[in-house]
Amino acid sequence: MKKVAVGVDIGGTNTAIGIVDEMGHVLSKGGISTPSHGNVAVYIQDLSDAINKMITNVKLTNEDIEIVGIGVGAPNGNYYNGTIEFAPNLSFEGVVHVVKLLKEKFPEMDAIALTNDANAAAIGEMIYGGAKDMKNFVMYTLGTGVGSGVVVNGDLVYGHDGFAGECGHTTLVPDGRLCGCGAKGHLEAYCSAPGMKRTAFELLAKYNATDSPLANHTYNDLTSKMIYDAAVAGDKVALEVFELTGHHLGQGIADTIHHLSPEAIFLFGGPLAAGDFIIKPTKASMEAHLLPIFKNKIKLLPSNLDAGDAAIVGASALAWKELDK
Amino acid sequence: MKKVAVGVDIGGTNTAIGIVDEMGHVLSKGGISTPSHGNVAVYIQDLSDAINKMITNVKLTNEDIEIVGIGVGAPNGNYYNGTIEFAPNLSFEGVVHVVKLLKEKFPEMDAIALTNDANAAAIGEMIYGGAKDMKNFVMYTLGTGVGSGVVVNGDLVYGHDGFAGECGHTTLVPDGRLCGCGAKGHLEAYCSAPGMKRTAFELLAKYNATDSPLANHTYNDLTSKMIYDAAVAGDKVALEVFELTGHHLGQGIADTIHHLSPEAIFLFGGPLAAGDFIIKPTKASMEAHLLPIFKNKIKLLPSNLDAGDAAIVGASALAWKELDK
Repeated sequence: MKKVAVGVDIGGTNTAIGIVDEMGHVLSKGGISTPSHGNVAVYIQDLSDAINKMITNVKLTNEDIEIVGIGVGAPNGNYYNGTIEFAPNLSFEGVVHVVKLLKEKFPEMDAIALTNDANAAAIGEMIYGGAKDMKNFVMYTLGTGVGSGVVVNGDLVYGHDGFAGECGHTTLVPDGRLCGCGAKGHLEAYCSAPGMKRTAFELLAKYNATDSPLANHTYNDLTSKMIYDAAVAGDKVALEVFELTGHHLGQGIADTIHHLSPEAIFLFGGPLAAGDFIIKPTKASMEAHLLPIFKNKIKLLPSNLDAGDAAIVGASALAWKELDK
Repeated sequence: MKKVAVGVDIGGTNTAIGIVDEMGHVLSKGGISTPSHGNVAVYIQDLSDAINKMITNVKLTNEDIEIVGIGVGAPNGNYYNGTIEFAPNLSFEGVVHVVKLLKEKFPEMDAIALTNDANAAAIGEMIYGGAKDMKNFVMYTLGTGVGSGVVVNGDLVYGHDGFAGECGHTTLVPDGRLCGCGAKGHLEAYCSAPGMKRTAFELLAKYNATDSPLANHTYNDLTSKMIYDAAVAGDKVALEVFELTGHHLGQGIADTIHHLSPEAIFLFGGPLAAGDFIIKPTKASMEAHLLPIFKNKIKLLPSNLDAGDAAIVGASALAWKELDK
């Protein structure tokens, strides 16, 4: 009997679903649209149907499998309540009781749990990835926003009301850039993909850099991939974008280290494809901001999870973790 | 049989010792000088003699007592190793194995443990104080420096190598004031008692405030008590010192909340005697820096521990906590 778990990653546009074995291998993956109609009951029915269909398909080629549970990663996911709460990028209003609704559809499963996407990635790193032997680490996920998952003594930290791990909202610059959350100077406003674009446009203006390839794109068109390509081609503006992004990220990571004394910090997400362009300045800035007792001791590592599958693999890991309890 | 624990607080000049019951009442207190001679063996012998003498005295008036253990709070205290490591304000060189040496002197005691002073204060708040019913909270201790103790799921967080809870070294201002640790812009450089003095002198210079009572003190003489007295008398510079100190502290506390989602933040130390002068701007700034999901939910509370005895009471609490394991 081979045990597998279902991983569900609820994004603003799509909901990805995967059947994942205990080694983190994805046996099957698929998905449905995340609806814009806001009807929770219809969505949960569609999701359940899709999961059942995938389970049936997987059983065709893997006869002896047992589904142990479902892990769900979602924006504003609250582990304690099993809810998605006031997620700005989803069409559902207020509080959605995802775990309760899924338990009604799958009463035979012991482990159904939900958390936010960054926490799911951290659990994925712990169950399948580079943090397998670690008890204390923090995962930063860089993308449209910046999320994080905090692990202390081998357990994810949810805090008093389930929302711990919002390291992307550390204030880096007093009265700095407006953050999507409404506050100012948060890390996310500097180190997310849109944050890198903001830095690029500031630098174009600062240097009047008409000869930079970045000067030929509109604000709405410029992507972090274009900044990376320009950096590879030696563009000074693009190189400085990575320098500054790393400088800011290193400052925030140092704050995290001072709080938690982790063994390692893992970095995950699109901007990490730039490798040393982002890792080197982040490491230098992190060390510069640290107390002597922490200097040259904390590992800064790219995530070991496969970028394409990390969201569903991480979500599935939540089910394994739940079974351990 | 009444159970009591010994609390030891090792400071730069004095080592305070107390015999504390399970309710946090100090039955007896005393102390010895923390030596400047750097001789660890002599110091541990003196400390053991003082503890034994106090135990004997307490037994004279409380016949049926049992000493369950010794908790030690010390700068740069490492819980995992039971050591004080490279403490800049103590005369001991390198690593001092305090717990090992005390166990040789008191082989009959089960619970002998050591941590840093801020962690000890947090455990004190949890065992005896305002955090008795809390599982997730953070304690900030404001004094010559700024320390902190982080509690998650009812346990103090030590992290991978025992040094978690250095929230005083969160970077608040990029490239800001020089911190005692050598880095720049750390919270401690703004919100410790010396940090408040630095703010006062900046403001005197900014406003050329010759009519402020603070203008009549040298840099080396000015104390945070003088700033408090001036604020009570309505001095604008002194009032702005508290405003700015609270503004900075609130920014750092918001970072802590984003990491850990605690139920409450406790504040302890000399500057808290100023009450609302410091609490109000701290609270306002904390709320302004928070994500909406955290706003108006996290309690900001003065410590419930008696300021005079908090260090030994907190240290003694470490012994009780150790017994629970």
